[in-house]
Amino acid sequence: MDISALQRRLRQFAADRDWQPYQTPKNLAMAMTVEAAELLEIFQWLTPEQSQQLSDDQRQHLGEELSDVLLYLLQIADHSGVDLEAAVERKLAMNAVKHPPLRS
Amino acid sequence: MDISALQRRLRQFAADRDWQPYQTPKNLAMAMTVEAAELLEIFQWLTPEQSQQLSDDQRQHLGEELSDVLLYLLQIADHSGVDLEAAVERKLAMNAVKHPPLRS
Amino acid sequence: MDISALQRRLRQFAADRDWQPYQTPKNLAMAMTVEAAELLEIFQWLTPEQSQQLSDDQRQHLGEELSDVLLYLLQIADHSGVDLEAAVERKLAMNAVKHPPLRS
Amino acid sequence: MDISALQRRLRQFAADRDWQPYQTPKNLAMAMTVEAAELLEIFQWLTPEQSQQLSDDQRQHLGEELSDVLLYLLQIADHSGVDLEAAVERKLAMNAVKHPPLRS
Repeated sequence: MDISALQRRLRQFAADRDWQPYQTPKNLAMAMTVEAAELLEIFQWLTPEQSQQLSDDQRQHLGEELSDVLLYLLQIADHSGVDLEAAVERKLAMNAVKHPPLRS
Repeated sequence: MDISALQRRLRQFAADRDWQPYQTPKNLAMAMTVEAAELLEIFQWLTPEQSQQLSDDQRQHLGEELSDVLLYLLQIADHSGVDLEAAVERKLAMNAVKHPPLRS
Repeated sequence: MDISALQRRLRQFAADRDWQPYQTPKNLAMAMTVEAAELLEIFQWLTPEQSQQLSDDQRQHLGEELSDVLLYLLQIADHSGVDLEAAVERKLAMNAVKHPPLRS
Repeated sequence: MDISALQRRLRQFAADRDWQPYQTPKNLAMAMTVEAAELLEIFQWLTPEQSQQLSDDQRQHLGEELSDVLLYLLQIADHSGVDLEAAVERKLAMNAVKHPPLRS
């Protein structure tokens, strides 16, 4: 996935619709959380086991909600000047220190 | 960003810590929403303008929360059999139909 | 508001629909978060000022989402054995210690 | 629970700390969602069964998070001019129409 290219497409998409005034990081963070909760709603009444065996319709719905979350996430990073790939590598290193493996 | 490679690293990270039983899509969706809200917390008392001018500390914190959301998002896609890149392209096409540009 | 009476009505409502197996505290917490995000959605693209001047339609919508959050909140307390009024008084006392008033 | 009295206490608490400028309905909705997710976090890795058998420490933590959500909820209603008790009765009536009981 070419993150920078996607971020440019999303900037152009917003510009073509005069959405820039709405796209503060604060508002984008709200929108991302709303989409995360729409994804959560798919699973809210499912058993753990049912959540592991989605139907094709549920999987397609899940793909749409995952995309919504990801597209807002990329826009937050873009509008806030965060280098997402560097941040992810840094977080993975932090997680490895915070949670050592059980076996070496 | 090589999504498949990241998903393999996250699977190995979980396996090395015996976390697999906890990582149902239902639980991962909860964890992703919790991380989205931690990101939201950064912005909750900021004005729109302040959210556009984060300090270096705030930007670093934001990068950590963006990474947390993204890492759970990649795991949900992986554990549910969603092809994330295909889903994103499909969603972008749907959005273009749903929200036509103002000017052609 | 008679909290215990409301909790009894909600228990009866669920029993009349055979919803008890779904109403674990875990699932109810997911449902409450989903409703909180639906409330958040009302405000996501509004300016701070617009959020202070809702239309009648927006206010009615807000009342529905506030009710949804509250009804799940009361069910979580009920199903988990939390005395909500005592918990609120305790939290208010904690908040007063944590955030002393500016003037005495 | 005397909702109006609680709302007056919360207004006074905010005034004593000069918090009024921050307490737009938009910001309060963000804060309520953040607290809902902190409550969700208690349950994220628990099985459905474990969520029904909380320890005393977990129950106390849950009471604190339920209170946080409720206190923001009461402030949103207060600052937006929503009559919460009327809204709840209206929503219960709507739910009864939307979801008829299985047996009459």
